[in-house]
Amino acid sequence: MSTGSDFLQLRPAAAPAKGLTTWLVDALRTAIRQGRLPEGARLPSTRVLAADLAVSRGVVVEAYQRLADEGLVGAHTGVGTVVTSLARAPEVRTAVGAPVESGPLRMPLPAPPGIAFDLSPGVPDLSAFPRAAWLRAERAVLDDATAADLGYGDPRGSAPLRRELAGWLGRTRGIRAGADDLLVVGGVAQALALLAQTLRARGVTVAAVEDPGSRGARDQMAHWGLGSVPVRVDGHGMRTDDLAASGADVAVLTPAHQFPTGVVLSPHRRQALLGWAAAAERLVIEDDYDAEHRYDRAPVAALQASAPDRVAYTGSTSKSLAPGMRLGWLIAPAPMRADLIAAKHASDLGNAALPQLVVAHLLATGGYERHLRTVRKRQRQRRDALLSGLRAEFPAVRVEGVAAGLHLLVTLPHLAGRADDTELAARIAAAGVFVHPLSWHRRLPGPPGLVLGYAAEPPDRLHEAGRRIARVVR
Amino acid sequence: MSTGSDFLQLRPAAAPAKGLTTWLVDALRTAIRQGRLPEGARLPSTRVLAADLAVSRGVVVEAYQRLADEGLVGAHTGVGTVVTSLARAPEVRTAVGAPVESGPLRMPLPAPPGIAFDLSPGVPDLSAFPRAAWLRAERAVLDDATAADLGYGDPRGSAPLRRELAGWLGRTRGIRAGADDLLVVGGVAQALALLAQTLRARGVTVAAVEDPGSRGARDQMAHWGLGSVPVRVDGHGMRTDDLAASGADVAVLTPAHQFPTGVVLSPHRRQALLGWAAAAERLVIEDDYDAEHRYDRAPVAALQASAPDRVAYTGSTSKSLAPGMRLGWLIAPAPMRADLIAAKHASDLGNAALPQLVVAHLLATGGYERHLRTVRKRQRQRRDALLSGLRAEFPAVRVEGVAAGLHLLVTLPHLAGRADDTELAARIAAAGVFVHPLSWHRRLPGPPGLVLGYAAEPPDRLHEAGRRIARVVR
Repeated sequence: MSTGSDFLQLRPAAAPAKGLTTWLVDALRTAIRQGRLPEGARLPSTRVLAADLAVSRGVVVEAYQRLADEGLVGAHTGVGTVVTSLARAPEVRTAVGAPVESGPLRMPLPAPPGIAFDLSPGVPDLSAFPRAAWLRAERAVLDDATAADLGYGDPRGSAPLRRELAGWLGRTRGIRAGADDLLVVGGVAQALALLAQTLRARGVTVAAVEDPGSRGARDQMAHWGLGSVPVRVDGHGMRTDDLAASGADVAVLTPAHQFPTGVVLSPHRRQALLGWAAAAERLVIEDDYDAEHRYDRAPVAALQASAPDRVAYTGSTSKSLAPGMRLGWLIAPAPMRADLIAAKHASDLGNAALPQLVVAHLLATGGYERHLRTVRKRQRQRRDALLSGLRAEFPAVRVEGVAAGLHLLVTLPHLAGRADDTELAARIAAAGVFVHPLSWHRRLPGPPGLVLGYAAEPPDRLHEAGRRIARVVR
Repeated sequence: MSTGSDFLQLRPAAAPAKGLTTWLVDALRTAIRQGRLPEGARLPSTRVLAADLAVSRGVVVEAYQRLADEGLVGAHTGVGTVVTSLARAPEVRTAVGAPVESGPLRMPLPAPPGIAFDLSPGVPDLSAFPRAAWLRAERAVLDDATAADLGYGDPRGSAPLRRELAGWLGRTRGIRAGADDLLVVGGVAQALALLAQTLRARGVTVAAVEDPGSRGARDQMAHWGLGSVPVRVDGHGMRTDDLAASGADVAVLTPAHQFPTGVVLSPHRRQALLGWAAAAERLVIEDDYDAEHRYDRAPVAALQASAPDRVAYTGSTSKSLAPGMRLGWLIAPAPMRADLIAAKHASDLGNAALPQLVVAHLLATGGYERHLRTVRKRQRQRRDALLSGLRAEFPAVRVEGVAAGLHLLVTLPHLAGRADDTELAARIAAAGVFVHPLSWHRRLPGPPGLVLGYAAEPPDRLHEAGRRIARVVR
């Protein structure tokens, strides 16, 4: 295999100054997809490729790691880094045999009145809303807006926002979509509503959902006639063997940071999931609800980046700006788009123009990214304060899902069989802290846990809340 | 009958300084509804009541006229002003026998490229968007907003907006509703979508619509499975005899300023319509799309004011601020509300918070009303410029629907049988002016006409456009 500057004709000079790793990941991913790096192909060693590209070795190591996270390459002792198969058939082992259920509309669960600390998951840090930047952007937008910008617009959304989002999602999530492939919607909730309507019209009656998982998501779909079958989530994400046995042809997942467990879908499972989808023209709905909040390193690329024809990708500004924005996006496989646009048009003609133009301006000027950096730093401090409070009283506490998002999961192996998490959450509420027992988010039996949202409280209060929780749990 | 200050215990001192007429209309309407003024009751003469209330006689004359417009009272020679019956049964004379049809989604029809003057109806004066007032209001909102204001909110809409709207619609449209009766929606289009979904779920399959009428409205409903049967509109509005013969139990109307003819639903027809609705638990959907633009005097009160249990009222900021706002309201009879709220929640969880709070602020501070006054003056000038252009070339031109709204109708009795309006509109387009032939908005046969929107062009250009149209038409 040729290496260095000849290897795939890589030209690091074409990369943006601060985005070498992302550039390299994109280039390698594209080569794998296009078959220029076929299954089994061996990548150059990190040392060799770094030297030939005149980049630091860390850039290549990180790029290979990200591709491994996506399941596109694997490391094999004595062989090096090798391209895996994208379309491996799913493993089928056990049946799941779970009921189809729909429930009342509820999102999110409210804290009881009079509680001292509200650690409900899913509530972002609204005090950090970038008021000044928002107003500056809105002023600029209103100065420039033409009459047509404020008229009846394209039901897909304002062109400037779709353009900026396509670029942003490409850079930060590896998404493969142009401005014309993207539908602006009223948050992930509307994306799920439109998808459910479109799938239902095609005869689909059930979707597999994660268990534990988002109750709001399954209620949203149930209203539109799309039932749900729960599929167990373990430490590697949704169990793809259970998924295959479920009989569903549509699966809804939160692969980057599973809600509410915080698990990242493992490379092996990603491959199995995409194989499942490819085997029978199935659909994966990828709810990328909080991927902007990643604390250790760049997040795993979106599933959509690996299989744009099998994945409908959705995200929103709910966790980055505020849920009250009701602004999100949906990138669906091309054959579904006309129906989705018609459904959006028939729902409300399209999203409001002004907030779209403001977000487009924030994206174009870097204001959105600056805000995310600020928020990420704040959230990391909050997460650390909560963890320090928990550990101050209970050093051996087991915590998962800490690398990303706005919540974490306390697992309770030391209490297995001795307490259920609902009863535990009630005792924690009596100590003044509202947390969700994991069982609120599941329909199948599973180990107990506590879901702790840390976005909405300041660090000193989170430390105190953590101590109170730990005193009850230990 | 007692008169003066004893008559209904009227207390003009309780009226707002500049709203005596509205206050008097409200008081009399309430008395009629509550049966304190029963059918056949004679009102005091305008002279007597004015003297006893110590208000100018014009106030009472105007109040009686508005009640007559609503069909609540009638003037009888030798008798005076008498309360009419609200629940008179509808007249049934002729069958309408029209087809149920649904069409592709389209709203509004675009002008062809390269046209010099775009007189499409339904496009407001977007250059008048109150940029400075909007930004000031948004700054004030962001200064005061709590974190909860930007979180997942009430699916019915922000409480401050619902409160302000209930007051505003009560004052300006006679609407009888509290903040909790009102649902904030993504424009009239979403109101129709939610109503269609809710009605369809109850087994309703068809609604009567005005013909000529809004194609967008019927397409919106058709997507959700609610077909439409066209009912003829004449110089008094929708023909209620045709409505009764149509077999539909739901009717969609634009009573204050019919789209596109500009006709105001006559008092007689209002009564017949409400009688039709009351006779069999039927529903009237009142699309009050441009009632804020009335040039001669206060608009006729909304139908909802006369029959809140039979009328679903909807309006929006599309014609007052901009269509791109996607912000409207729906006030439905109480038994439908839970289903409508569930449908709204399942569609998008609720409207975006920030624009709602800004509009609430504009309503509360009077900024909204100031903007409307400015726009109304501009629109009147534009209407007059268009009329003067038409009359400069064709003094006998027949024009209707000029008292309100953002468009007018040129009728063509002198061309009856000699030209169809589609061919005429094509010749006008060749002269550089885009207008809608009336036949684009109808499915039943009827007299030709031209619909001319005057909101989006400045007066000098409208004068010129009017001349060009008249030269073709005469």
